[in-house]
Amino acid sequence: MKLFIDRLIDKVEAKNSHVCVGLDPHLDILPSFLVEKYMNESKDSNLALARAVLEFNKKLIDKIADIAVAVKPQIAFYELLGTAGLNTLKETIKYANEKGLIIILDAKRNDIGSTAGAYAEAYLGLVSRENSNKKYIANKVDVDCMTINPYLGYDGIKPFLVKKDKGAFVLVRTSNESAVDIQDLETKDGKKVFEKVGELVSQWGQPFIGEYGYSNLGAVIGATYPEELKILRKAMPHTYFLLPGFGFQGGKPQDIAAGFNDDGKGALVNSSRGINFAYQRSPWNEEYTEEQFAEAARAAVIKMKEDINQYI
Amino acid sequence: MKLFIDRLIDKVEAKNSHVCVGLDPHLDILPSFLVEKYMNESKDSNLALARAVLEFNKKLIDKIADIAVAVKPQIAFYELLGTAGLNTLKETIKYANEKGLIIILDAKRNDIGSTAGAYAEAYLGLVSRENSNKKYIANKVDVDCMTINPYLGYDGIKPFLVKKDKGAFVLVRTSNESAVDIQDLETKDGKKVFEKVGELVSQWGQPFIGEYGYSNLGAVIGATYPEELKILRKAMPHTYFLLPGFGFQGGKPQDIAAGFNDDGKGALVNSSRGINFAYQRSPWNEEYTEEQFAEAARAAVIKMKEDINQYI
Repeated sequence: MKLFIDRLIDKVEAKNSHVCVGLDPHLDILPSFLVEKYMNESKDSNLALARAVLEFNKKLIDKIADIAVAVKPQIAFYELLGTAGLNTLKETIKYANEKGLIIILDAKRNDIGSTAGAYAEAYLGLVSRENSNKKYIANKVDVDCMTINPYLGYDGIKPFLVKKDKGAFVLVRTSNESAVDIQDLETKDGKKVFEKVGELVSQWGQPFIGEYGYSNLGAVIGATYPEELKILRKAMPHTYFLLPGFGFQGGKPQDIAAGFNDDGKGALVNSSRGINFAYQRSPWNEEYTEEQFAEAARAAVIKMKEDINQYI
Repeated sequence: MKLFIDRLIDKVEAKNSHVCVGLDPHLDILPSFLVEKYMNESKDSNLALARAVLEFNKKLIDKIADIAVAVKPQIAFYELLGTAGLNTLKETIKYANEKGLIIILDAKRNDIGSTAGAYAEAYLGLVSRENSNKKYIANKVDVDCMTINPYLGYDGIKPFLVKKDKGAFVLVRTSNESAVDIQDLETKDGKKVFEKVGELVSQWGQPFIGEYGYSNLGAVIGATYPEELKILRKAMPHTYFLLPGFGFQGGKPQDIAAGFNDDGKGALVNSSRGINFAYQRSPWNEEYTEEQFAEAARAAVIKMKEDINQYI
């Protein structure tokens, strides 16, 4: 069985692309023509919005599937719509999978071991329970990998490493302003907390290194922190990075270059709002209407891919 | 409008109880008579298990509602059962709410500000979006408070503080063995990461202190770490603690005494497996059968309440 990380890098090679597109359907900026269409069809606003999101996602996926390597649905926006949202998430994942995209579920889950196992089972199809009975397998949402939070330490990480064909990206340095509050605390040997977490993630991932020299256990490093990215790239040579915060949040192409190794690999760059809602932004808003949101997204993804490749 | 924390402490006073019961339906140890009953009714195993969990929860709630102050459903076990699980969670919350219990959703959610807002909206009924339209309000699961993870810093915490009648408990010291991996890193001023996180949580909660002198922003501190509990109680006098890990995970009544202030308040003690599956454990397994799981749970909860009250 092929390791998750090798499957991912195969696709990176085949597409000559390091692009991941976030699927973050912020309800307030969803194209109004879509919202209205489904609102007229159903009195259940959750259901209507979930349907609008599904059409939005499918149209987007159609236009970006040949350029992007992966999509990263942010589960919060689907949880917000209850069971209808969960169904839309499931359908979106199925659709993206059929289009050959790797699915990274952005869930940032974390808990003590026995509960972390339930999350791994829910999203990665892990069956960790003793005496497990096939008929108990839930596995309603099946993704290639998910993001997880390291605060509880290794026993909360382990369940996500059990299935070799699945992976996880651990938060090391997040892209937001308040990342500094805890991640920048200085430890007694002069290193900051995020560096220590990076070292741990690197160790934890060591037994799961594949053909390309990268581990099934990746790391999330905000594209908005180029200095920290440089430090971590050096400290974690065998860890694949997921770099959120490109574009809308402020991460620039020249900044993310530091996330790559000399082999031209090692990082997947994510943009969510900058692609999803490109039609609302300069320069795409001059050329594309709301109805052409997917075409605008395609143009933005092509530019993103080229911008990144130019700097590696 | 009454603050969440004041509503909680009113109930603590009225019931003279500091007990919270986790609702963690581990599928493998669910009473088999319940599983079989619903498995015979439906071919959809998720649906069958979700129904078994709902009956289990309701019977348990009936027997503990007059003793416990709060229940804490662990969302992972419900997510595991997909949309059927989410419906069971929703029904369980509604039922526990009708029985006068405070609901603490154990979700450990965390993300950057805009996404954390989506989680707060999904579970605490917050409407954070600009130009928000009433008909967009999802709010399918409405709890009193939830657990959150601090790794992303303040902007990921803020959205959970917007509604004064809702609260949050931030992970400071978790109950598991690997808690030490990151939480025990020593910072340059000699304090450990968990102490620094405790100080931050205390500061962040300062503007939200209610009548009893406690904040709407609480902290999760594992009952399995009595020394750390002592340190944190001193450092965070205005922070209410949620202490998981009592009983099954190893936390003892004499240990959790350190979690209380001189006013006899300041901590809610949680037990999950020790109550849910008391019928499988000594001494309850001698007196109660599987069918009497709720009676066994009641006996275990009464003992837990007395054990705690004896040591405060």
